[in-house]
Amino acid sequence: MATNDTSATSGMNGTQPESNVDVLIIGAGPAGIMAAAWMARMGLKARIIDKRNTKVFCGQADGLNARSLEMLDSLGFGDRAWKEANHMIEICLWNPDENGIIRRSDRVPDTPVGLSRLQQSTLHQGRIERFFLDNIKKYSNDTIKVERGVLPESLEIDQSKVDDHGAHPVKVKLRFLTEEEAAPKQLGEARFLMTYERAGAGETVHAKYVIGCDGARSWTRNTLGFELEGEATDMIWGVMDIIPFTDFPDIRCRCAIHSATHGSLMSIPRENNLVRLYIQLVEVKPDASGRADRSKITPELIFNAAKRILDPYKIDYEVCDWWTAYQIGQRVGTNFDAHQRVFLAGDAVHTHSPKAGQGMNISMQDCYNLGWKLGLRRRIARDLIEFDNRFARLFSGRPAKDILDAEGVSMDEFKEAFVQGNMFACGLSVNYGPSNLVLKPGDAEEQGDGSTVAPPAVAVFQVLNQSDGRPWHFQKRLPADGRFRVVLFAGDIHNAQQKKRVEAFCAKLDAPSSFLHRVVGRDGRDGLHSVVEILTIHSAKRWDTELLRDFPEVLHPFRRATGWSYDKVYVDDVSYHEGFGDAYKNYGVDKERGCVAIVRPDQYVAWVGDLEDFDEVQSYFEGCLVLKEYTNGVYSSVAVDASEGAVATEGISIAVR
Amino acid sequence: MATNDTSATSGMNGTQPESNVDVLIIGAGPAGIMAAAWMARMGLKARIIDKRNTKVFCGQADGLNARSLEMLDSLGFGDRAWKEANHMIEICLWNPDENGIIRRSDRVPDTPVGLSRLQQSTLHQGRIERFFLDNIKKYSNDTIKVERGVLPESLEIDQSKVDDHGAHPVKVKLRFLTEEEAAPKQLGEARFLMTYERAGAGETVHAKYVIGCDGARSWTRNTLGFELEGEATDMIWGVMDIIPFTDFPDIRCRCAIHSATHGSLMSIPRENNLVRLYIQLVEVKPDASGRADRSKITPELIFNAAKRILDPYKIDYEVCDWWTAYQIGQRVGTNFDAHQRVFLAGDAVHTHSPKAGQGMNISMQDCYNLGWKLGLRRRIARDLIEFDNRFARLFSGRPAKDILDAEGVSMDEFKEAFVQGNMFACGLSVNYGPSNLVLKPGDAEEQGDGSTVAPPAVAVFQVLNQSDGRPWHFQKRLPADGRFRVVLFAGDIHNAQQKKRVEAFCAKLDAPSSFLHRVVGRDGRDGLHSVVEILTIHSAKRWDTELLRDFPEVLHPFRRATGWSYDKVYVDDVSYHEGFGDAYKNYGVDKERGCVAIVRPDQYVAWVGDLEDFDEVQSYFEGCLVLKEYTNGVYSSVAVDASEGAVATEGISIAVR
Repeated sequence: MATNDTSATSGMNGTQPESNVDVLIIGAGPAGIMAAAWMARMGLKARIIDKRNTKVFCGQADGLNARSLEMLDSLGFGDRAWKEANHMIEICLWNPDENGIIRRSDRVPDTPVGLSRLQQSTLHQGRIERFFLDNIKKYSNDTIKVERGVLPESLEIDQSKVDDHGAHPVKVKLRFLTEEEAAPKQLGEARFLMTYERAGAGETVHAKYVIGCDGARSWTRNTLGFELEGEATDMIWGVMDIIPFTDFPDIRCRCAIHSATHGSLMSIPRENNLVRLYIQLVEVKPDASGRADRSKITPELIFNAAKRILDPYKIDYEVCDWWTAYQIGQRVGTNFDAHQRVFLAGDAVHTHSPKAGQGMNISMQDCYNLGWKLGLRRRIARDLIEFDNRFARLFSGRPAKDILDAEGVSMDEFKEAFVQGNMFACGLSVNYGPSNLVLKPGDAEEQGDGSTVAPPAVAVFQVLNQSDGRPWHFQKRLPADGRFRVVLFAGDIHNAQQKKRVEAFCAKLDAPSSFLHRVVGRDGRDGLHSVVEILTIHSAKRWDTELLRDFPEVLHPFRRATGWSYDKVYVDDVSYHEGFGDAYKNYGVDKERGCVAIVRPDQYVAWVGDLEDFDEVQSYFEGCLVLKEYTNGVYSSVAVDASEGAVATEGISIAVR
Repeated sequence: MATNDTSATSGMNGTQPESNVDVLIIGAGPAGIMAAAWMARMGLKARIIDKRNTKVFCGQADGLNARSLEMLDSLGFGDRAWKEANHMIEICLWNPDENGIIRRSDRVPDTPVGLSRLQQSTLHQGRIERFFLDNIKKYSNDTIKVERGVLPESLEIDQSKVDDHGAHPVKVKLRFLTEEEAAPKQLGEARFLMTYERAGAGETVHAKYVIGCDGARSWTRNTLGFELEGEATDMIWGVMDIIPFTDFPDIRCRCAIHSATHGSLMSIPRENNLVRLYIQLVEVKPDASGRADRSKITPELIFNAAKRILDPYKIDYEVCDWWTAYQIGQRVGTNFDAHQRVFLAGDAVHTHSPKAGQGMNISMQDCYNLGWKLGLRRRIARDLIEFDNRFARLFSGRPAKDILDAEGVSMDEFKEAFVQGNMFACGLSVNYGPSNLVLKPGDAEEQGDGSTVAPPAVAVFQVLNQSDGRPWHFQKRLPADGRFRVVLFAGDIHNAQQKKRVEAFCAKLDAPSSFLHRVVGRDGRDGLHSVVEILTIHSAKRWDTELLRDFPEVLHPFRRATGWSYDKVYVDDVSYHEGFGDAYKNYGVDKERGCVAIVRPDQYVAWVGDLEDFDEVQSYFEGCLVLKEYTNGVYSSVAVDASEGAVATEGISIAVR
């Protein structure tokens, strides 16, 4: 604080510093820090700025669906969130009986059974951000830090350079805010985390890529001239975070409560006996402009609405952590990127009602995908909006009085939509359309609409390590370290015919011309297992099988420093302590013949084929990775930084096509 | 380092500072830091000193049995160890076949199935110490730190004060070592963690209690004039931590290998492809003094012995992290405490061969018990020694050639002893004899000999939270926070007769004269749930049951700040995602009638009785806690600090009798 003078001087002397960066991330909410986490894991030179000078302390998003928890787990800190969060196990549906009194009409599991080893949970956004920041610090060696109180002032794209992937075509001017400018008004004496040495100064950053994660009023989106499209509805809802005193018996479950005439309420139990209530305000209506007068909405008004909905149960509170009100509306961006050099993610391209707990989850998922591969993104945003639209209408609708009540919402319809919608909301049925990273038949327009419930690409079935018998949820062997994985379901390795098929596949995999020997690893060293890892699951009995005797060496490579790899070959067999995962059956793989799958760095299955289809595996990696050429027994070196279509990183190189 | 001069001066000017402390812990190995962790959790004023100036970097203990993992979990960091450790799932037994060639003769699970949700694991002692230090820092608000390079110079007990529990009868003079004195010779350029400001100075500490955890050559034990009793054998073993290159197929399992004529070997797989080998050195013999000449033992000699035992399999290595050799001997202390004011724990009172992986585990268990209640300790040490003696003889013995070979060890006998011994070694069958904390019938001398396999007092069976349906391993609801717990197995709460029994028990529990209203909590505030927590598990269907409607309020007390407690009442019912724990059946409790159990702060069951036996519950707590008096509707205040028999702490008060 004493350095304000110095900073002002350096800001005024006109010598604005310039710098280069691989990726500049604008906004440090859930989307931005997820992008930064990938950059840290992949060793990219990245910066992340935010105009706010503190992280979040209360309110805001708090739901973590099963897929988000799996993502956090793949980054290495799912266990921290799982340990602290409130697990939401059960949803209770409450509806009016024939006398108009609310009754529990159904109970369903919050996370559909069998899809994930993790369940929908709630935890304050500030804690989740803390886990991310610790993770980013660890993997970036403290080189990537959130720079707070920093505002972008201009953004220009040099279109002559956008096809040169080694270039830095995006120029962003930054300004470092003063203490007064950066303090959020509502926080009063906030904790100041920003660097005041630079207050008032500026900097010009030249970036290869920019990711705009700066929220619903995105400066990045506005600067690019893009818009959010969509309309507000006339549905007004209030939100309160309270510690309730109530005789309502399901207060620690997630409840969807439709009252006969007073509107609806959703309760979300949280940590420390907190409960978030979403409360429909049926008495508040938009004015002629289509907007509600928010100045008339008070905590008393909201809580009285909650009391009417919950009657005859009583509810009271002393502690209210946070409250707000919102008008339901779904909007989606007109554009998601500019020249594949500036990308928008999170609320900057899709806003929607918060009740489904999707804001933070989808924002994180946006950047979990974007982080490792800048592209492949529009479909999921549109799915979300479609889902949300349907969900909001059903949820705010008055319950149908009977089957002839056409205006009311049928509770059967609601339950069905809720259960199916919840399958989407849990994050496990998002289904990317075909592209060069997801090879599958079918029309892109028809796929990925979120209406068919597909299991997660790589689910959670248990296998045993061949060498030591330890049971693993196979997903735990797919950490988010930027590697692609080829999973060889080797089948019954003791069947002579099958063993020949495995050996033939491995011979091609291990040939000098194989992609495996042509990937470009860190510092030019052998890329084997540093860009693409080969994992094996066989279906013979573990006790009859030996790693070195029964499997070609490419499946458990030897290194001088560490000996043979004992963490690559797994078996679908019964464990001593954790039962039987029955992974072949659950994955739908033939126990005799097996198959081969390519798994992307974000755990989605990109391709599945037979052991004879090595050429397709080779084509896949030729299509999306930068490979050395192999001619007449000689590998060409690849000048990765300058090569067309390559993002060179410390650990990996991925073509952006 | 630059402050040596200053420190020397302050040491020489003669004004030696004096200070008071509740507990002084001498030695910061596994036993000492476990004691310090309890002190931190219970808010005691404690110090922990160690003459070494660094923590452990390689070698030493590395086994964590299931019970140790449960202890770490109860302290809050079992998950960190479990995540990093190598899990040992399977033990392979190898023995000579009829041609003298080693063959795998059996496979058994390393941790007996069904006893714990955690399995025997290996992790470097330095990491485990790191987890402890982080935990101690957190719970002591950084007030308890390991003071390194500090040596005790004298210890005196003022016997006139040992019965005054508020007194500080133990006087220990400390000296702060200089850099040269504190550096372990073998480490070379070690990391210096000690405070050189004080180097050369002294301090006099007055302690209520002292715990000597200073190892096999314990200064504390020697100063008290106590000894270790026992004899060395003529069995010499070498130990090596290597990354092996081998075609031995079970190298990632724990193996016990008896060769026909070259001795025995045990392999312990560890993290990062390391393996610890314990190798019998049949060619090395003790001299006339009974001691082996250790100068003749080299890594080459040890490794050549390993090669001979493993033949015809090949083994080689490039990296050896650590090696040592030892002569097997079991010794146990003549005394375990002086005046119940100075206690010895860990290697200071029992040394033994390291192969069973017991050193660190038993040392931690010593202080897990001692930490919350200074006493009740001799039996477990003696059990360990008896077990170890038998184990060592069997393990070092030559395999019997046939049934007539009386000198050889029968492999059937070995397997039986191994499996049963392993039940002890996994830490779950330790069985304390009767005392005023463990009320059970029987002769103290006959109990707790480690030969009967008893399940852990409070095992791991899954129950559901009544309010939100979340599945919990019940043990997770018993964290090591110093609280006793009364567990009410309420049975079928919807049976009218049973409900009356529950209500009658609760009425006594909630009466003004009940121990529950007479315990002394932190800062004199209501002790309810701060010293004794009441937990309930009922056996009715969760869906038929409501917390507020069906259970007396003492089972889910209301607080103004947080509302009703939703974390006290559980149900033995089927979960959505995690199956059925069948806890009543597994705990052996009648599903209709239930029972009541008292669980000590270290998770052992102290007493089990009927719902009609409230008076026994009352007697138990009158016997071991300091309670306020209740007469004519008035509670007397207790001057805790001065009261006879009380250790007053921030959070709790426990009589030491």
